[in-house]
Amino acid sequence: MAKDIYTAALIIIGDEILSGRTHDKNTPWIAEQLNEAGVRLAEVRVIPDDKQNIIDTVNEMRGCHDYVFTTGGIGPTHDDITSESIAAAFGVELELRDDAYAELLAYYKDESEITESRKKMAYIPQGANLIDNPVSGAPGIHIGNVYVFAGVPRIMQAMFDAIKHSLTGGKPVETRSVSANLAESLVADGLAEMQGRYEMIAIGSYPKYQNGKFGTTLVLRGTDDEALAKATQEVTDLVKSLGEDNPIVA
Amino acid sequence: MAKDIYTAALIIIGDEILSGRTHDKNTPWIAEQLNEAGVRLAEVRVIPDDKQNIIDTVNEMRGCHDYVFTTGGIGPTHDDITSESIAAAFGVELELRDDAYAELLAYYKDESEITESRKKMAYIPQGANLIDNPVSGAPGIHIGNVYVFAGVPRIMQAMFDAIKHSLTGGKPVETRSVSANLAESLVADGLAEMQGRYEMIAIGSYPKYQNGKFGTTLVLRGTDDEALAKATQEVTDLVKSLGEDNPIVA
Repeated sequence: MAKDIYTAALIIIGDEILSGRTHDKNTPWIAEQLNEAGVRLAEVRVIPDDKQNIIDTVNEMRGCHDYVFTTGGIGPTHDDITSESIAAAFGVELELRDDAYAELLAYYKDESEITESRKKMAYIPQGANLIDNPVSGAPGIHIGNVYVFAGVPRIMQAMFDAIKHSLTGGKPVETRSVSANLAESLVADGLAEMQGRYEMIAIGSYPKYQNGKFGTTLVLRGTDDEALAKATQEVTDLVKSLGEDNPIVA
Repeated sequence: MAKDIYTAALIIIGDEILSGRTHDKNTPWIAEQLNEAGVRLAEVRVIPDDKQNIIDTVNEMRGCHDYVFTTGGIGPTHDDITSESIAAAFGVELELRDDAYAELLAYYKDESEITESRKKMAYIPQGANLIDNPVSGAPGIHIGNVYVFAGVPRIMQAMFDAIKHSLTGGKPVETRSVSANLAESLVADGLAEMQGRYEMIAIGSYPKYQNGKFGTTLVLRGTDDEALAKATQEVTDLVKSLGEDNPIVA
């Protein structure tokens, strides 16, 4: 039976994010793609390059959500331990796969170029499907409800594009926003009253602080276009009644 | 007894991050501050504005780590449920605190400006300390090993600055990096051999892909300055031996 709500978790495997060195750019991109697919990103975890941690996190998340995506750690270096961890999470072995090897060969052109380190990228958990990597040869992995992507945004995006059609989702979540040069505490009362009346629309209030002034963006999200349009109009009227002459509605 | 390793978890409370609308900017900033304080950011979780989820996550994380930081959800609107969730996680009540109210009053200047929604920000979990908010009046919260910050980066940073001196950490983790215009698969073998010899230095390899070309940044992290300098020199020599004439060492 079709469900109303499909959820996903994103597991970002990367010491480089936790050290502050690299800024994660994958979360917002994946979140937006999932919105379009009618799948709700319900949780993101950033964890270190640690095998047991990856195993435990993948096993916990794949039991809780329809889909799990991981980014990072499928390259050729010693700190790339995602594939072996995924295999361990599913209780299967890694095997050297002819089809994955063929993809590497197509990329590196010559057998002599496939060093032991590069060959590592053709070891795939038993029973997994490969996800095409048009950028750098080494494939992603799909096993159970888990999709294993590279961490480099350009490659991750290509892999996601390759599997997006296979995701089953509910109605896409649509978003509207109303931005006003008002402190959010001014709109709080009216907004709370509105949220009480619009059960199926999630209304969020996001303050910003720029050049010594507060502004607020009110974000409405839901799957019912008509209710969304009506609620957006109400929010617009609310901020106008509070003194914002030119709210930005998007 | 002083420990060698202190760890922290960051809990980002925010539907707006999970929807892809807002890009989290707090993680790298907090990670770097913690590096300086000798505390390792061991895990980040992005969770929705859901009370039970906040309670469960806070309780799990505060049992695993020396410090827990949360961002988001302490404002005046209906979707700001962090304070009540933190109180519930610790099994205490929220109470209207005179000192928190005084901070609001100092900010809003007049009692008539303290609407019910704004007053909500003076309700603090019993037994908590306030964290000064020099930007917008409403204080952060410190209870047990949990620090509750605003989500707006400018305010979060001011709150972190206010508590940073009170964190106990180990030796600060120092970072060096060596960037080369080489595919990471080329350095993989040499790097794995090196990592075997440098147990106390974490060596990470981070590929990038720009303008159709691969490059790699090799990152070395550790608390032993001398070992770090020696390992950085070895990595530099390694990439030079593989054909990179001008590695960028930082």
